[in-house]
Amino acid sequence: MTSPTPIAAGATVADLGEFGLVKEFVGRFQQGAQVYVGPGDDAAVVRAPKGHVVVSTDLLVEGRHFRREWASARDIGRRAAAQNLSDINAMGGRATALTVGLALPRDLPAQWVLDLADGIAEEAALVGASIVGGDLTAGSEVVIAVTVLGECAVAPVLRSGAQPGDVLAIAGRQGWAAAGLAVLGRGFRSPRKVVEAHQRPEPPYEAGPAAAAAGATAMIDVSDGLVADVGHVAEGSGVAIDIDTAAFPLDEPLQAVGAALGVDPMEFVLGGGEDHPIVATFPAGSSLPAGFREIGRVTARADGAPAVTVDGSAYDGSPGHTHF
Amino acid sequence: MTSPTPIAAGATVADLGEFGLVKEFVGRFQQGAQVYVGPGDDAAVVRAPKGHVVVSTDLLVEGRHFRREWASARDIGRRAAAQNLSDINAMGGRATALTVGLALPRDLPAQWVLDLADGIAEEAALVGASIVGGDLTAGSEVVIAVTVLGECAVAPVLRSGAQPGDVLAIAGRQGWAAAGLAVLGRGFRSPRKVVEAHQRPEPPYEAGPAAAAAGATAMIDVSDGLVADVGHVAEGSGVAIDIDTAAFPLDEPLQAVGAALGVDPMEFVLGGGEDHPIVATFPAGSSLPAGFREIGRVTARADGAPAVTVDGSAYDGSPGHTHF
Repeated sequence: MTSPTPIAAGATVADLGEFGLVKEFVGRFQQGAQVYVGPGDDAAVVRAPKGHVVVSTDLLVEGRHFRREWASARDIGRRAAAQNLSDINAMGGRATALTVGLALPRDLPAQWVLDLADGIAEEAALVGASIVGGDLTAGSEVVIAVTVLGECAVAPVLRSGAQPGDVLAIAGRQGWAAAGLAVLGRGFRSPRKVVEAHQRPEPPYEAGPAAAAAGATAMIDVSDGLVADVGHVAEGSGVAIDIDTAAFPLDEPLQAVGAALGVDPMEFVLGGGEDHPIVATFPAGSSLPAGFREIGRVTARADGAPAVTVDGSAYDGSPGHTHF
Repeated sequence: MTSPTPIAAGATVADLGEFGLVKEFVGRFQQGAQVYVGPGDDAAVVRAPKGHVVVSTDLLVEGRHFRREWASARDIGRRAAAQNLSDINAMGGRATALTVGLALPRDLPAQWVLDLADGIAEEAALVGASIVGGDLTAGSEVVIAVTVLGECAVAPVLRSGAQPGDVLAIAGRQGWAAAGLAVLGRGFRSPRKVVEAHQRPEPPYEAGPAAAAAGATAMIDVSDGLVADVGHVAEGSGVAIDIDTAAFPLDEPLQAVGAALGVDPMEFVLGGGEDHPIVATFPAGSSLPAGFREIGRVTARADGAPAVTVDGSAYDGSPGHTHF
C-alpha cells in the first residue's frame, strides 16, 4: 500500500493536528467485507458470523520493544501487527479486525506515523484483517497499543490441553530475531538475515488454523522465549515437556552470530522470543500438518520435576524475557 | 470488589515482577457467562450470539488525561472504563468485554495498579462486562489502553443519520466534569460535586440502547465537547444543528464555579467533555425515551453555513478538546 496523500516534508504530529493526523492515518486502511461499520464513528462494528470473537491486546513501548534507530516505522508497524495477529494464530483462529491506539510525542514526524500505519496495514492484509478503529493521543514516548479480533473455524486450541504421550511440534523460524537483536545491541547491522528477522518477523499464519484442524491438543506462539512459552503450555496442562535440541539445525546465520559474539547459538533458539513460530502438541501418531516438525515429547509430570527440560535435563539458561 | 490478596506495603511494580503483577491484576476480574476463554491464554474468546461485535479503543496518558494527584487510582480506573463503555453506549449497544493494556513505570506502587484494576472492574460491572485480557509492560509514564467489545440488539446508531426536522436530545449530565477540571486546575478541591464529576463520570448506560430502540436517527457521546460532538453528527449527517442554551438550566455548582473563576458557566456546558452524556437525534414528534430531554433542532444545511449554531448564531467559544 502506498501513501494516498503526500504530506509536507518535516511536518510533525503537532503540525497536522489531531483531526488532520487521524484523517491521514485512517486513509491508509482499506475495509474488508467483514466490516459493517469502519473507522469514524464512536465504535466499529465487525461481523462475527460464527457467534464468537477471539480478542487479544499487546502494547509496544519505544525504547523497550522497539527503537526508532534500529527499524523503520514501516517495519515497526508490521511487527506491532504481527505479534497481535500471532496471538489469534496461536488459538487456531484467523484475524478479522484490529484497533490501533497510539501515544505520540508532539514533535514526532507525521510521516513516521503514516509509515507505521502502512506497515500495520501490510501485515494485516496478509491475513485479510482490517484496521477498523483506534485512538491517537499525545504522549512523551511512542506507545503502540494494538487489539486484534478474530474467529476460529473449530474450537480454539488452548494452552491447557497437552497430554502425556503427545508430541511437541513447531512451525516457523525460531531464534533468528534474538540473534538479530543481539547483533543490533552490539552496534552491528549484519548478518542482514537475522537483523531483518528481528525487524520484521514472519509468523506462519497458516499454521495455527491448520494445527487446530489437525487436532492439536495445545498451542502457543513463541513470543517470550521457547523454553518460557513451552513452559506455559506445560504449566497450563499439568504435564512435563522435553525439548530435543537435535531437532533444531543451527542455520548458518545463527552460527555466525554465535561465533562473532562468543555465545552458544542454541541460546537464541531456547531463550529467544519475537519470531512468533507456532508450537503445538499433537496426539502421538498424528500426521503433522504441513510446516510442522517434531521438536519434543510430552510426559507425565512427577512431583517436584521441572515443567520443561532440554535434552532430558533442567534448563539453566535464561528461559525468556520479562517486562519489569 | 475488594482486593483478594493484600500485597506488601510499598511494593512497586518491579518488586512484584511481571508474572506476580499479572496474577494479582487478573485476580481482580470476575468472568461473566459471555466469556468462553478468559485471561491467561494467547487470546480470550467472547460469545457474540448476534453475529457481530462492536469495538472501540481509547488511550489515557498520565499528565494529559489524568493526574495521579487529582484522582485515586480507583477513580482513574472507573473513568478509563467509563469512557470506553460510553462509546458502545453511543452506538446503542451493550458492552460485553474489555481488554486492558498498561504501560507502567517500574517504581509505581503495585497497589496503585491493583486499585486501578478494581476501578475498571467496578465500572464494567455496571453493564455486566468482563475484563477478559490485556498486557502489562514497562513504560516511563502510565498509559492505559482500553478496548471494549459489545453488541447491539437493533442496528447500531451512527453519527450519519440525522435528518432535517429531527429533534436533538440529551441524556445525562453535561458540563460538570469541565467545571471540576477548571477548579482542580486552579488548585481547588471544591465544589465537591463538580470535582467528583470530573474524577468519576456517570454515563447513562441505559440511554444508548433505549434511544436505539426508540428509533434514534443519529447518536454520539459527548467526550470532546458538546459543540464539537454535535458538530461530528452534523458533519457526518450533512445537516445543520442548532443548540438551545435555554434547555440547559445552570445547576448551582456550575454557577458557583463560574462566579468563583469569573467565567460564563455556559462555557462548561458547550465546550466541556468527559461527562459522557448521550446526544441523539429523533424524528420530529417522537416520544423521547426516559432520561432524554430536547436541546435543539436539526435543519437543512445551507452552503457556507456553520454545521452547529448556538441559539441561532455561530459559536465563538472553544468547541472542545484536541489532543495535539
